[in-house]
Amino acid sequence: MDKVRLINIKESILSDNRDLADQIKLELGRSKAYMLNLMASPGAGKTSLIIETLRRMKNDYRFAIIEGDIESQVDSEKIAAEGVAAVQLQTGGACHLDAPMVKKALDTVDLESLDAIIIENVGNLVCPAEFDMGESRKVMVLSVPEGDDKPLKYPLMFSVCDVLVVSKTDYLDNSDFDMDALVERVSRLNPSIRIFKTSCKTGEGLDHWCAWLKDEIEAAVL
Amino acid sequence: MDKVRLINIKESILSDNRDLADQIKLELGRSKAYMLNLMASPGAGKTSLIIETLRRMKNDYRFAIIEGDIESQVDSEKIAAEGVAAVQLQTGGACHLDAPMVKKALDTVDLESLDAIIIENVGNLVCPAEFDMGESRKVMVLSVPEGDDKPLKYPLMFSVCDVLVVSKTDYLDNSDFDMDALVERVSRLNPSIRIFKTSCKTGEGLDHWCAWLKDEIEAAVL
Repeated sequence: MDKVRLINIKESILSDNRDLADQIKLELGRSKAYMLNLMASPGAGKTSLIIETLRRMKNDYRFAIIEGDIESQVDSEKIAAEGVAAVQLQTGGACHLDAPMVKKALDTVDLESLDAIIIENVGNLVCPAEFDMGESRKVMVLSVPEGDDKPLKYPLMFSVCDVLVVSKTDYLDNSDFDMDALVERVSRLNPSIRIFKTSCKTGEGLDHWCAWLKDEIEAAVL
Repeated sequence: MDKVRLINIKESILSDNRDLADQIKLELGRSKAYMLNLMASPGAGKTSLIIETLRRMKNDYRFAIIEGDIESQVDSEKIAAEGVAAVQLQTGGACHLDAPMVKKALDTVDLESLDAIIIENVGNLVCPAEFDMGESRKVMVLSVPEGDDKPLKYPLMFSVCDVLVVSKTDYLDNSDFDMDALVERVSRLNPSIRIFKTSCKTGEGLDHWCAWLKDEIEAAVL
């Protein structure tokens, strides 16, 4: 395998992607629409967090959700059941979303009529970290059952995100997850990251998370 | 982004990879060493499964473990603490192991002195599914907290694996995970897959899993 050739191609893909991401960012700015890129491992609770967020905020802000999956549309059906617009992107094998895919999804909605867009990326702690899509913020979810050692193994994802949502804190009692160790490991990689500790089962921390998101959307809209 | 160009390159990488994987397979066959490729999401419990397997089997068989991680060597330190040889592969960003990486790891061990090699792949339910590495079997771990809908979203991984180890069954009581729905979804994708239901906390199912692995190793050694 010719490593150098591979790296060059990757660089050119990333730079094409960045150009389109910049264009999307400008477009969102003109429409005063806020966009969030939500990333996590499979099963960390991205869809549940989005649904709980919508239940608390959909009466105050006009949302659209872009669902990225390799296959299936189970998540966008769950979003639609909340009465919120959902665009399903099926990547057909690709392990992350990129700016061209998101551009295609955005072209199907009327940005002027929206306050906020949440992109649920493909479940993957590795590849999505490298692709900007013109989002205002990158947010990752880490669930308690995944363990407190993940920042050691997937440092790029923890480094590029503005916010870490620790999910499934209701599992803490049944686990040896060390929250202090996690916070210390994450902060060493990314001193300015915001951390929210949440459970969609008990509701813990969701009001803090939604308050942060509200401030973010307001800042983009004004 | 030029999709056609990208696909061609991917094809050539995959075909180079396959050639080397075939070569590794021949080499393992000559040395009568069994090799297992263990894949899962981050935090599904791959390392815990390996450690519990070693505790039950290391007195009867000579193991080596290849640990694939983007960064860190926490897992290979855990393996070494069990008195078993561990080779840490740091991919430095790459989201999966491939045959060239595994070849490098195998070149550091004496295959003739080994009965079984377990490769712990990078935590990722997507990309590792595409790369053969000359292994005898592909095994995936899915943890209960990840949810029973994962076969719908990551069908390739469930399709290419010979065995599914459902882990963390001790979480079942605290979860809406539907085991029957999981088994039905997996079987539809892959009717011949073997499924083991396990918990490294309670020990459930580990004897069945180890009995299967014992048969596999014996068949390769004889």
